[in-house]
Amino acid sequence: MKKIYLAGPDVFFSDIAERAKFHKQLCLDMGFEPLHPVDQPVLQAPEIYHGNIDMLRRADAVAANLNSFRGTEVDSGTAFEVGYAIALNKPVVGYIEKSTTVRAHVAAALGPLIYDDALEVWRDTNNNLVEDFGLPVNLMLAVPCTLVTGELADALQALRHHFGMTDPE
Amino acid sequence: MKKIYLAGPDVFFSDIAERAKFHKQLCLDMGFEPLHPVDQPVLQAPEIYHGNIDMLRRADAVAANLNSFRGTEVDSGTAFEVGYAIALNKPVVGYIEKSTTVRAHVAAALGPLIYDDALEVWRDTNNNLVEDFGLPVNLMLAVPCTLVTGELADALQALRHHFGMTDPE
Repeated sequence: MKKIYLAGPDVFFSDIAERAKFHKQLCLDMGFEPLHPVDQPVLQAPEIYHGNIDMLRRADAVAANLNSFRGTEVDSGTAFEVGYAIALNKPVVGYIEKSTTVRAHVAAALGPLIYDDALEVWRDTNNNLVEDFGLPVNLMLAVPCTLVTGELADALQALRHHFGMTDPE
Repeated sequence: MKKIYLAGPDVFFSDIAERAKFHKQLCLDMGFEPLHPVDQPVLQAPEIYHGNIDMLRRADAVAANLNSFRGTEVDSGTAFEVGYAIALNKPVVGYIEKSTTVRAHVAAALGPLIYDDALEVWRDTNNNLVEDFGLPVNLMLAVPCTLVTGELADALQALRHHFGMTDPE
């Protein structure tokens, strides 16, 4: 059974207990063994870090919740884990609730963008450049990951396809 | 000469041309060869991704701007690169402008936190758990990185120390 590490800001959600239970059952139902960050005693930061890294290293692939968290960026712990997994050549499928682009997403969150005629780029209300490649997240995540619109189930379906697991499960 | 990859949301700042020039000179002045994401033609997303990854793989260490970007999170491209570098056992020094904690930082950005008596944790105004380990960023970044308060110069000083480079430079 392929092991899937479940990355995401979900560990911070108020319904994490039910949510983790649901996500782990979903993995099993779809033919995977889940490795979930909640499945370790809450100790101090170093123990949690090393517990997560141990799971990530044992995983055959990662399913990552790439919805933005406390602003317009992907949760930084999740982005770190995606980078770590990609460096180890593990497949990562990122899932995002709605089909969007960084440009549309930043405009929706922070207000209308301003077009910089001189450099031919879009800027946000703080004058920071906004990526405009038609991708839903920062290109460092969007390029190496397989991205799906939807929920964890959609990411797991993409991983079934990746691993050549026959449908229907 | 040790090569330092300069990670950060700086590539989105409106003063990036002057800023990158200053940062690269600072590296040279402090005895390092800079590898900067700006030093490649702006092409499409896959070329930029692979150009950055090539530099990251050639680097001996990473200096990462971990100040928050468009919200309370570290820039997701930067967090990805830190994870990638850590997986390859490269030393990473993160720099943050002010000494702070996730708890203080989220409260300052989003409003007063609420204490969850049942679980004995702090929650933000969206009811999401707020890490309370006294660390300035998500533990997945704070644990494996060396963190300094200040600017790139402070990170480079920490890297001089790491590499046993004799002071003063």
